[in-house]
Amino acid sequence: MAKGLPKRSEDYSLWYNELVKRADLAENSAVRGSMIIKPYGFSIWEKMQRQLDDMFKETGHQNAYFPLFIPKSYLSKEAAHVEGFAKECAVVTHYRLKNDENGKGIIVDPDAKLEEELIVRPTSETIIWNTYRNWIQSYRDLPLLINQWANVVRWEMRTRLFLRTAEFLWQEGHTAHATKHEAIEETERMINIYAEFAEEFMALPVIKGLKSESERFAGALETYCIEGLMQDGKALQAGTSHFLGQNFAKAFDVKFATKDGGKQEYVWGTSWGVSTRLMGALVMAHSDDDGLVLPPRLAPIQVVIVPIFKSEEDQNRIAEVAEKLRKSLKKKRITVKFDNRDTHKPGFKFAEWELKGVPLRIAIGPRDLENGTVELARRDTKEKNTVNIEGIESIIEDTLEAIQNNIYKKAKDFRTENTVKVDTYEEFKNIIENKGGFVSAHWDGTAETEEKIKEETKATIRCIPLDAEEEAGTCIYTGKPSNKRVLFAKAY
Amino acid sequence: MAKGLPKRSEDYSLWYNELVKRADLAENSAVRGSMIIKPYGFSIWEKMQRQLDDMFKETGHQNAYFPLFIPKSYLSKEAAHVEGFAKECAVVTHYRLKNDENGKGIIVDPDAKLEEELIVRPTSETIIWNTYRNWIQSYRDLPLLINQWANVVRWEMRTRLFLRTAEFLWQEGHTAHATKHEAIEETERMINIYAEFAEEFMALPVIKGLKSESERFAGALETYCIEGLMQDGKALQAGTSHFLGQNFAKAFDVKFATKDGGKQEYVWGTSWGVSTRLMGALVMAHSDDDGLVLPPRLAPIQVVIVPIFKSEEDQNRIAEVAEKLRKSLKKKRITVKFDNRDTHKPGFKFAEWELKGVPLRIAIGPRDLENGTVELARRDTKEKNTVNIEGIESIIEDTLEAIQNNIYKKAKDFRTENTVKVDTYEEFKNIIENKGGFVSAHWDGTAETEEKIKEETKATIRCIPLDAEEEAGTCIYTGKPSNKRVLFAKAY
Repeated sequence: MAKGLPKRSEDYSLWYNELVKRADLAENSAVRGSMIIKPYGFSIWEKMQRQLDDMFKETGHQNAYFPLFIPKSYLSKEAAHVEGFAKECAVVTHYRLKNDENGKGIIVDPDAKLEEELIVRPTSETIIWNTYRNWIQSYRDLPLLINQWANVVRWEMRTRLFLRTAEFLWQEGHTAHATKHEAIEETERMINIYAEFAEEFMALPVIKGLKSESERFAGALETYCIEGLMQDGKALQAGTSHFLGQNFAKAFDVKFATKDGGKQEYVWGTSWGVSTRLMGALVMAHSDDDGLVLPPRLAPIQVVIVPIFKSEEDQNRIAEVAEKLRKSLKKKRITVKFDNRDTHKPGFKFAEWELKGVPLRIAIGPRDLENGTVELARRDTKEKNTVNIEGIESIIEDTLEAIQNNIYKKAKDFRTENTVKVDTYEEFKNIIENKGGFVSAHWDGTAETEEKIKEETKATIRCIPLDAEEEAGTCIYTGKPSNKRVLFAKAY
Repeated sequence: MAKGLPKRSEDYSLWYNELVKRADLAENSAVRGSMIIKPYGFSIWEKMQRQLDDMFKETGHQNAYFPLFIPKSYLSKEAAHVEGFAKECAVVTHYRLKNDENGKGIIVDPDAKLEEELIVRPTSETIIWNTYRNWIQSYRDLPLLINQWANVVRWEMRTRLFLRTAEFLWQEGHTAHATKHEAIEETERMINIYAEFAEEFMALPVIKGLKSESERFAGALETYCIEGLMQDGKALQAGTSHFLGQNFAKAFDVKFATKDGGKQEYVWGTSWGVSTRLMGALVMAHSDDDGLVLPPRLAPIQVVIVPIFKSEEDQNRIAEVAEKLRKSLKKKRITVKFDNRDTHKPGFKFAEWELKGVPLRIAIGPRDLENGTVELARRDTKEKNTVNIEGIESIIEDTLEAIQNNIYKKAKDFRTENTVKVDTYEEFKNIIENKGGFVSAHWDGTAETEEKIKEETKATIRCIPLDAEEEAGTCIYTGKPSNKRVLFAKAY
C-alpha cells in the first residue's frame, strides 16, 4: 500500500481524492469548484485528446473554435435547453474594474455594465447553431461535421476532481445533416467511436445505450451514452451523443435548399462530447491501493528504468546500459523514463512510479550487469521476472500489450460479476444497497416510476442497452408490462 | 485578382478583413469582439500549435491547465499587473439565471450573486503564482517549467479578426527559477524559440529586441519581443517573453529553501506567450491580391490536384492517376487534396485554391495522361511547368522547400528595403508618414520623448534590438546623447 494512501475497501471516495492529488493528476484551486490539472495528469489528457482527435478526423470531422461567451438571449432560444442550463451558469455582467474612490481597493466599475449579460458557455449548441444559419444554405453545404476542444463552465454545487467540476475541458461535436436518417447515423457513429476509445485505449468496458427521457440532454430527442462500472459498484457515464432532431435548427432558423427542386427544409442536428471526466473514470476503473494503474496506451511513461547502485562507478556503468536501452525502446515509440536521481533510494522510486501507474518497471543492479539481465516488474499483476537484456525490446512490447489486455479483462470480469438480472423490487433494493453494480430489470417506461425508484434507492436508469433483447416481463416497481430490460445503478 | 477581393494597394485594411473571411479563416461572431475560427483557419492554427508544442517540450516544458476564473483579489495583488489589466476585463458576478416572475423572460437571478467577483483570465500569472506557492518549497522543485494552451479575454474596444479580439487563443508559459541568471536565460531561450518558429515555419523574418519601459508587460522587469514587418509597412509584435524578476513571487509569497543551508529566498519568474494573432501576421506578411500565400510548412493542404476533363471516361482515368499520386505523396508526409468535384469547373477551382493559399497546384488533363505529364503551378511565383509524372515526388518535395525559402526571402527583402536609419526628426516624420517600415533612430531613453513622438507621428518604439551596436548619437527629438539606435514603426 502506498504510504498514506487510504485503502479502497475502507473509504473508496477518500482513496480516489487522495490518489488524484498524490499521483499529481489534479488538485483543487482557490476558485470554488475549479481544478488545476497538473502536468502529469495533463499529459494523460493530452494522450486522450490526440487519440480522439485522430478518430474524429478519420471520420471526416474538422476542428473549429467558437466564442466562450453566449448572449443570454441565445441561450434562451431553445426552451428545454435553457431550462437545463440556466440554473447553474456563470454570468458576465461587467467589463471593467476600477480603483474605488473611497479607498475600498479594486472594485467592479458600475459604469461598465453590459447591455446584455453574457453566459460562460455550459455547452455551445446555441452559439454554434446561430452561426450555422449563415454557413448552411443548400444541401451542398451538408453534412457539416465540426468539433471543438474547449473549456466549459457549469456552476455545480458539489464538485469532485475530474468527476464534477465547475470548469472542465472537453470536446463538443456539432453536426448538421440533410436528413433524419443521416443525423441518427452520425449520432450512432460517434457513440461507437467513444465506445471504441474507452475499450481499446482506456481499457474500460462500456455498455452502449439510450438514456431514458428524463436523463436526456436538454434539447435532444434522443441521447446515446456509454456507461462504465467503477470498482465501488457505481456506474459512470463516460460519453454522450445526442440526436437533436430539428430542435436547434428551428430555434435558430437554419434551413437548406433541398436537392430536388430547392424546397427549404430545416436541418437535422447532432452533438456529442467527452470531457476530463474520463480521467476520473480511468483512475476509478483500474487503480489499486498502491496507486494508479494506467493502461499502456495512455500512460505518459510506459517504462521506467530504476538503477540500483552503491558506488558511483556502478551508477555510471548502469547508466550506460540504461541509456542504450532507452534509446532502442524510443525507436519502437515506447516512452521510457530513466530515473537516475541520486537523491532517492530505489525503494522510494519503486513506490513513486507505482503510485503514478507506470505499467512496466525495469530495475538494473550490478549483478544484472554481470549476468546481462534486468528485473522486469509489471504494475498490474506485480509479477517480477529476470530477463536477458539481449532482445528485451520485443518482450517489453509484448508485455505492454499484455498489460493493456489484462487491465481490460479484469475490468470486464468485474463488470460481469457485478451485473445481475432481477425480477422483484425486493431483490433489486437488496442488490443496489448491499452489492452495487449494474442491475438489469424490467421497467414500465414511465418517468414517475423511474423517479420513485430513484428516490427510494438512489439508483437511476443508466441506459436502455442498444443490444437489449425483446423479452416480455413486468415492471419491478408497478408490475405493469414491459418488453425490455433496462440497466439500473447508482452512479457518479 | 480574386473575384471581389479588394486590392492591397487600394485598401490594405479592407483587403485583410475580406481575405480572412473569404479564405475561410475566421469571421466575427454575434458576441462583440469575439471571433469564430473556421475549420480552414483552425487547421493552420493547429499546425502552429503542434510545432510550438514540440519545441516547448524539447526544451523541457510540460503542459498543465489552470482555472479560467481569477478571484478579483488575486488580480489585485501585483500593483502594476492589476493596473495593466483592470480596465478591460470580463467580470463574472452571478452564477444563475431564472424565469422572471413579471414575465420578462430569463433574467439574472439577483439571489445568486457571488461573494467575490471572478475575472475571466486576461493572462494567468496571478492564479498560477498562487498555485506555485504550494508547489515550490525547495531548490529541488526548481526550475518549474510549465506551459498552458488556453483562451483568454481582454475587453478591447476596437477589435479586428485575429489581430485584436476580446477572446483569443494562446499559450502562456510560466516558469520559476532559483536564480536571476537562470530566469533571464529562460526568458531569452523562449524569445529565441519564438523567433525560430516565426522564421522557419511562418517564413516571417523577425527582429528580436527589448521593449521600452512603457511598452513592458504589466508586472515584468523586462519584456523581450519579436517584431515582424507587414506589407503595408506597419510592424506587428508576434510574441513576447517576460522576465518577471521576483515580482509575482513577492506578491504571492513564493519562497524556496536554497541548496546551501536552506535559506528562504524568493523565486525568480518568467512568462511568455504567442496567440492567434500569429494568424494575422501570417496573412499580412505574405498574401497577395489573389488571396492567401501560405508557407508549405504551415499549409493544411500543401498540394491540390485539379483534374481537367470533359467526359466521365476522362474523369475516371485521371482520377486513377491522381489517387496514385496522392498516395505516393502521402508516404512522404505531403498533404494532398484531390479536388474531383464535378459541380465546379477547373477555373473556379484554381481561383478557390489560390484564394486559400495552397502552395502547389497540379492540373491533369487528357493530354497529360497521353504524355505522362502534369502541370505544376506555384502559388508564390505563379510559375507553371509541365513535368513528367514519373519521379515527380521529389520535384514536389524540392519545390515545396523552394517555396518556403522564397516566401521567407521575399519578406526579408521587403523588410531590408523598408528599414532605414535616420538622424533627424524631419526625416523621421517624413518616412513614418509617407513610406512606413522600420525606422532606426537615436532616442534619449525617456518615456516623455517616446510619448511625444507617438503623439505626433503615431510611431512607437517597437524594440531595442538585441543586436543593436553601441553607437554614439543624439536623440532625434531632444538632441540629448544616446548610445544606441532603437527601432520605431507604426504598429498593429
